[in-house]
Amino acid sequence: MENKINAAAEFLKNNDDFYILIHQSPDGDAVGSSHALWHALRSMGKRARILCSDPIPDRFDFITKDYTDEEFEPKAIMTVDVAEKSLLGEKLSQYADRVDFCIDHHVSNKAYAKDTLLHADAAAACEVVFELFNAMEIPMTRAIATCLYTGIATDTGCFRFSNTTADTHIAAAVLVSYRINHAAINRRMFEIKSKERIALESYLATNIEYECDDKIAIVPITFGVQKKFNMKDEDFDGLSSIALQAESVEVGITIKQKTEDRYKISFRSSNNVDVSKICAVFGGGGHVKAGGCTLVGTYDEVREKLVSAAKEAL
Amino acid sequence: MENKINAAAEFLKNNDDFYILIHQSPDGDAVGSSHALWHALRSMGKRARILCSDPIPDRFDFITKDYTDEEFEPKAIMTVDVAEKSLLGEKLSQYADRVDFCIDHHVSNKAYAKDTLLHADAAAACEVVFELFNAMEIPMTRAIATCLYTGIATDTGCFRFSNTTADTHIAAAVLVSYRINHAAINRRMFEIKSKERIALESYLATNIEYECDDKIAIVPITFGVQKKFNMKDEDFDGLSSIALQAESVEVGITIKQKTEDRYKISFRSSNNVDVSKICAVFGGGGHVKAGGCTLVGTYDEVREKLVSAAKEAL
Repeated sequence: MENKINAAAEFLKNNDDFYILIHQSPDGDAVGSSHALWHALRSMGKRARILCSDPIPDRFDFITKDYTDEEFEPKAIMTVDVAEKSLLGEKLSQYADRVDFCIDHHVSNKAYAKDTLLHADAAAACEVVFELFNAMEIPMTRAIATCLYTGIATDTGCFRFSNTTADTHIAAAVLVSYRINHAAINRRMFEIKSKERIALESYLATNIEYECDDKIAIVPITFGVQKKFNMKDEDFDGLSSIALQAESVEVGITIKQKTEDRYKISFRSSNNVDVSKICAVFGGGGHVKAGGCTLVGTYDEVREKLVSAAKEAL
Repeated sequence: MENKINAAAEFLKNNDDFYILIHQSPDGDAVGSSHALWHALRSMGKRARILCSDPIPDRFDFITKDYTDEEFEPKAIMTVDVAEKSLLGEKLSQYADRVDFCIDHHVSNKAYAKDTLLHADAAAACEVVFELFNAMEIPMTRAIATCLYTGIATDTGCFRFSNTTADTHIAAAVLVSYRINHAAINRRMFEIKSKERIALESYLATNIEYECDDKIAIVPITFGVQKKFNMKDEDFDGLSSIALQAESVEVGITIKQKTEDRYKISFRSSNNVDVSKICAVFGGGGHVKAGGCTLVGTYDEVREKLVSAAKEAL
């Protein structure tokens, strides 16, 4: 780890004209870590560019407003928060086999880059970048602190999840001391919803189906539901936590219809059930507490398969 | 501040047979801080008893399970997290004028005790107690860390609110390093809901009324709504944040009917409006971001008064 921090520091110091690649469907950690690196490289007098296959969502405006894109050919290519090269997406696939350095925190990292700083105990890529900047004595600024705080807060559910460690809180202590507007960041990341989203979440919460003495909760997002709310496909993302709200629930299953007979499944566990094992049965994967898979069939067939697999796991 | 830490330390060291009084409707900070003090006093070989006018809610079982109540007459009476003596409630009113020492973090503390350790910058009474224990070199245990973490997490909305400082995160860093089950605590404090509560919140979110270009949101909890859900009076508490979910909302107003013509009002501000000023107009009070008052009239009269006061404040 120590050496890799040094390797990362040398990589940043000894190169110029960086491309910083992040994963498709960028989240707070991808956006925060890449923009923190961009600020740091600029302060070192270097050129850098952030690239993503998807547009960065508007809710990260408070981060992206400080960024200026300039066009140049890369002399050094790095990724941050990208566990495997397929996550770079279609538009960045041309760079997938040319990554010089990767900074990441996913235990599942596929070591696709020429060199990698992987800190699997870190709650977020931003926590790794925070350590790296400390080691390099990069002057902390309010802009960098805002980027890093956002990534750490979003990847930990605002310090709620079990990935939050003492080191995570120490990083947060330093970052909030730079007088960032953390309450506003958290409101934006965790509280604010569109009126349509409020209506959708309320509808889904009202229509949760329970099985097995309420230990299993199923949230159906069929074409019927999707038509009823008439929103974009991605507006139906991030709904998996709804299933776990009731105290009794140990396994939450969110079933999202993708085509007439294809369903994207998201599993969540509140307790001891390892949902990655259930997902593996259906060709999917994930972590102990969160996993996913895809099933083909009618809704009723799919639902029955999922419920009986969950029952068995309980 | 330093001296008062010493005064608090001396108070704990030089006395025995403590009554630790907390406020009615006890929350995570009241429960956590009192139980942390109880553990510490026990480790010092002293007797202590926690008293509250209301029963401590079941969701704090993971804290109260370690507590043993024993009956004795007090030789020293202290309060923790109690800003004014009226908050002790009916059952503890006999002690209200006999409080020897108060530990608190409310800027509004009325200095009703013979001596007070007040740290108004602390996010929670538990943060003050954490500092006190450090100064006293009280050995930290997992039980104490669990108590203190719970109070800090609940009073900051899990580190979301603006009262969270670098010191708050440093305390959390130390506390989670004692291998407490913070993810389980946070699930219990912030995620778990009864099925009835899920249905109620969904109903209220679906029926939010918007005024003034969606800058004002009104959540009505009339007798009609209360009858529809047939829950206990306190089950309709803690719903004020629902009004602020939509991005555009700057002032959230929750109107809870108490009698035929009396309404308890809860104001929330997401931005710059100081709702304590609006509440003061109606004889209530509070902070910049959260306040309350009581109004008499028909629902429509009350609603109109509130909306026009909010419009004026915008």
